Amino acid sequence: MSSTARQHDERSSVDGESYVIGVDYGTLSGRAVVVRVSDGAELGSATLDYPHAVMDTTLAATGAKLPPEWALQVPQDYVDVLKSAVPAAVAAAGIDPAHVIGVGTDFTACTMIPTLADGTPLNELTEYADRPHAYVKLWKHHSAQPHADRINDLASERGESWLPRYGGLISSEWEFAKGLQLLEEDPELYHRMDRWVEAADWIVWQLTGRYVRNACTAGYKGILQDGSYPSESFLGALNPEFARFAADKVDHEIGQLGASAGTLSAQAAAWTGLPEGIAVAVGNVDAHVTAPAAQAVAPGQMVAIMGTSTCHVMNSDVLAEVPGMCGVVDGGIVSGLYGYEAGQSGVGDIFAWYVNTQVPQRYFEAADAADQSIHQYLTDLAALEPVGAHGLIALDWHSGNRSVLVDHELSGLVVGTTLTTRTEEIYRALLEATAFGARTIVETFNASGVPVTEFIVAGGLLKNAFLMQTYSDILRLPISTIASEQGPALGSAIHAAVAAGAYVDVREAGQAMGKLNRNVYSPNPQSAAAYDLLFEEYSLLHDYFGRGVNEVMHRLKAVKRSVGAASVASAPSATGISTSSINGGGSISGGGSISGGGSISGGGSISGGGSISGGGSISGGGSISGGGSISGGGSISGGGSISDDACEVPA
Amino acid sequence: MSSTARQHDERSSVDGESYVIGVDYGTLSGRAVVVRVSDGAELGSATLDYPHAVMDTTLAATGAKLPPEWALQVPQDYVDVLKSAVPAAVAAAGIDPAHVIGVGTDFTACTMIPTLADGTPLNELTEYADRPHAYVKLWKHHSAQPHADRINDLASERGESWLPRYGGLISSEWEFAKGLQLLEEDPELYHRMDRWVEAADWIVWQLTGRYVRNACTAGYKGILQDGSYPSESFLGALNPEFARFAADKVDHEIGQLGASAGTLSAQAAAWTGLPEGIAVAVGNVDAHVTAPAAQAVAPGQMVAIMGTSTCHVMNSDVLAEVPGMCGVVDGGIVSGLYGYEAGQSGVGDIFAWYVNTQVPQRYFEAADAADQSIHQYLTDLAALEPVGAHGLIALDWHSGNRSVLVDHELSGLVVGTTLTTRTEEIYRALLEATAFGARTIVETFNASGVPVTEFIVAGGLLKNAFLMQTYSDILRLPISTIASEQGPALGSAIHAAVAAGAYVDVREAGQAMGKLNRNVYSPNPQSAAAYDLLFEEYSLLHDYFGRGVNEVMHRLKAVKRSVGAASVASAPSATGISTSSINGGGSISGGGSISGGGSISGGGSISGGGSISGGGSISGGGSISGGGSISGGGSISGGGSISDDACEVPA
Repeated sequence: MSSTARQHDERSSVDGESYVIGVDYGTLSGRAVVVRVSDGAELGSATLDYPHAVMDTTLAATGAKLPPEWALQVPQDYVDVLKSAVPAAVAAAGIDPAHVIGVGTDFTACTMIPTLADGTPLNELTEYADRPHAYVKLWKHHSAQPHADRINDLASERGESWLPRYGGLISSEWEFAKGLQLLEEDPELYHRMDRWVEAADWIVWQLTGRYVRNACTAGYKGILQDGSYPSESFLGALNPEFARFAADKVDHEIGQLGASAGTLSAQAAAWTGLPEGIAVAVGNVDAHVTAPAAQAVAPGQMVAIMGTSTCHVMNSDVLAEVPGMCGVVDGGIVSGLYGYEAGQSGVGDIFAWYVNTQVPQRYFEAADAADQSIHQYLTDLAALEPVGAHGLIALDWHSGNRSVLVDHELSGLVVGTTLTTRTEEIYRALLEATAFGARTIVETFNASGVPVTEFIVAGGLLKNAFLMQTYSDILRLPISTIASEQGPALGSAIHAAVAAGAYVDVREAGQAMGKLNRNVYSPNPQSAAAYDLLFEEYSLLHDYFGRGVNEVMHRLKAVKRSVGAASVASAPSATGISTSSINGGGSISGGGSISGGGSISGGGSISGGGSISGGGSISGGGSISGGGSISGGGSISGGGSISDDACEVPA
Repeated sequence: MSSTARQHDERSSVDGESYVIGVDYGTLSGRAVVVRVSDGAELGSATLDYPHAVMDTTLAATGAKLPPEWALQVPQDYVDVLKSAVPAAVAAAGIDPAHVIGVGTDFTACTMIPTLADGTPLNELTEYADRPHAYVKLWKHHSAQPHADRINDLASERGESWLPRYGGLISSEWEFAKGLQLLEEDPELYHRMDRWVEAADWIVWQLTGRYVRNACTAGYKGILQDGSYPSESFLGALNPEFARFAADKVDHEIGQLGASAGTLSAQAAAWTGLPEGIAVAVGNVDAHVTAPAAQAVAPGQMVAIMGTSTCHVMNSDVLAEVPGMCGVVDGGIVSGLYGYEAGQSGVGDIFAWYVNTQVPQRYFEAADAADQSIHQYLTDLAALEPVGAHGLIALDWHSGNRSVLVDHELSGLVVGTTLTTRTEEIYRALLEATAFGARTIVETFNASGVPVTEFIVAGGLLKNAFLMQTYSDILRLPISTIASEQGPALGSAIHAAVAAGAYVDVREAGQAMGKLNRNVYSPNPQSAAAYDLLFEEYSLLHDYFGRGVNEVMHRLKAVKRSVGAASVASAPSATGISTSSINGGGSISGGGSISGGGSISGGGSISGGGSISGGGSISGGGSISGGGSISGGGSISGGGSISDDACEVPA
């Protein structure tokens, strides 16, 4: 587990100033930021990497292999952020904690926790610690796709009125699909579960002792539309035992965004070092809190929070049905406007995957020599060529497609490789693919009567100027960038300030505390024209693979799942490791220095280099392979998850 | 330049034995083998890497950037093999050169040299040394595709009788397409050229002083069918100045395979240390000489010479039209049977490209730790998973598609990647893709009345047992393997023995001197069934991308070419190297150190700097040395050119 704290340039030394804390829960870490209420100055921050990171190949508690497309977390890691990062941020800011008037949080979504009536996560019950379904299902847990498919098919067949509010498809990531999977794969746990809680609300529950469901996730992820959830009759038709899912497990008091959910409990005050009784804002989602932090809550201003994935949020004064949007919720971002959400499941995650699995050492060495990150180095190399010189088109679906296809059975593709294709050229094709994906979303909004007039980027990827210029060229839109490196946390702080009564509403607080650099990038006409041609190719492949002409991606995942399931069933569960006798799958191989805790376990493919070492929970999946850089903490597990959180630059 | 010689287990110590020399000219090196005439025992061998390797990004003499899809060589490199590898092999064998009775050679094809009437290559004229068209156009020089397209379109339109003999399409690799390109892109050189000579025949010319055109390349690559070349009327319709191309530049005395082309000249005797006046066999092609070396000249025995690319040769007693075959030539492999040829443009080349551009350091370290080649290490890792577990399908067209699509504008593809896809999984998908490509060829032969009953593998890739098993599973055929590590050189030696009169014909010599391990691999029924499903997916993508449904690969190459052409036009032509000033093409970069310039190619003297990196244009000399991170992009490594010759394991 690692924690970093940072003191910011601006210092608090003005008497009478008050402060708020914003806490941003990302995919791999939680970040706390201390913000001055008067002007949004960010005075100090601290980050804690979740000790268990993302469990997507094995369950840390047992080392048991997880099936494909699973992604779990441990709730206690979130509390650890309160205990560690919040006091560290306050210390870094150099303020007196007595002057903190409120706390706001935002979370990845839809990230779900099964709990008892008092909020205790089921995985904390000893008897369930070995049950994967007792854990947090992270947003990118995608194995409930068959359940989502059934929900969509039935809703479409019955003409359920809520379906068009979600672009015609609900996602496998959301509350109902994940809940149905839980019921059908572990009914005992399902029945033991009293509440099916958004992590965004669970953390507020831990801070206040009160459970309040936030309007944002209830609307976007919980299918709460016009005050109602899907009917018992609908749910019962999916599975009779699921009929009362909404009524019994999900339905609860709703809190509006920016409102106070309660006050800081004595216990949470002890954890954080903050004053008991200060305001705690209703929970919220990382993407949505960022809009006011970027002063971008007017209709047509699309905010893209670009990190491991990209979330797009935009307000409008009209209610429209946008195909493949994640959802439209009245007041889902700020009250008084319809809040639209769309998304790309994989963006920085794809770049990180590429760097981790497809980039030779010479690039890392050259990047080191140039004192650049590997991402920047590859970008700079790739940027030297004119548009189209690499001859490549990629589909950015390595983590599925959220908008506009809403299909997590899709997968990545690169076409056009030749024997002279260079590493950085494919990297660039992946960058471009995500921009083409964004253009597909923007064009779909435009065509649906909700035009996008400005594209505002938040999240770590905005640091990559070439990427931003590429987006501007491909979107043919000016691009503005948030002037904060911690947009979500700033947004949470803005909500905290409103919850504490310092501003009348989120819009006013955003104007005072938010920060934006306007029109930093403008389209280059020549590049834009060249990219138009490539976008046509992207669209052709997009529709061929994504709209049912060739379902090869679906079939390959089905084969993978059936083969993988057989493999999980037969894999031995290792109980210990030593350098001389490595247990578990037959394929652990390589250097003599694999060492460390007893819980390295599982899969057949830990291999290679001498430097896998350290903590007890390096766990088994097929994707730890080789070498030198895997070390230390207990949380490294396979492939795609070595990447940063949802709103930060990967690697 | 590097040369290696090897002494073999069996030694010549029997008085009265006679010997032949086989010389195999591959893509990157030439190999000489000393073979005992009585039983084919291989007594010693030596290899010389061509000093100029393959020039596919810059011209060594000037450093000028070459357009995409070019691949040139320097003829003098071939003579150097005679001077270096032949005496080294004789020395390694420990025989008395006086007992050598003949020399045979085989060459990559179609590899073409423009010469004066006396055989002098045009690039050796000082005034033409800076002209790319003056150099050897290597088989994989693919930029004559537009010319091939015109030839095919016109031949199809006019119903030329020779077209079906080549599967309905002639290749951009062949004599006429490359010749037309030469005429139209450098007419001055074209008119100065007296002869357009197959390298296979040019080297025999150097050995004997006589120019004899071999029946094999004349038929397969030179469109000589039933004694005639394409007519003047046809050629003139392509371009009036091309009308007499066949008559003036190509047509010449034909020599049959296994016949003597002449005797070793005094000059060549001096180069090689062999006796003047011994028999020199008519030239031949690497793939075709290998069939008798593998004792596989009966109908239905398909010999696949698997190296950087794969050539398939098979005899039949029937004349059929097989779509997409490279050609059928009466007596093209052995007299009395119709010789069929097909091919896959990229096989080991693709694996080498992947290893050079897409494999992280930890795999190399683990391979070193396990004392394995990187290819074997990746193979072993990938082999642990059951069929289909990686969820991937690749198209093996990184170097275009020779059979059955005959389209070098096609390119590679990988579909199905996710954030947990591992490096070795994509490697395996590429291995499998080449096997699917082979199955496509076999099925096309079967469907055309020329059934394939046995699959016999020669070439370096047969050492990869998992690859061989995969081929057996995917082809659903038993696989036999040649029992020589230098099949083409052995085949050339067999032809030398026939030319010298030691055997009556090639078949008899092959029975005595050839070597085969029969049915080493058999299909695993379970894997074969699983692969059948994946082959369906491959075929669907094959037809979608390869048969005109979506011409995206063509369009991407067109864009790349137009952009690349602009880039070549504007690129400075570097004439020197310095560590501080980076010269050369726009795509070369690297953290502040030596990078780039066109003149880094060729020479044996680049040394130093830890960060040579990037661009595709560092090419050439074998003695690049120095710092730990010489990382040259595409063409030290990339671009498939650090791979061995066409019949050997890459890397």
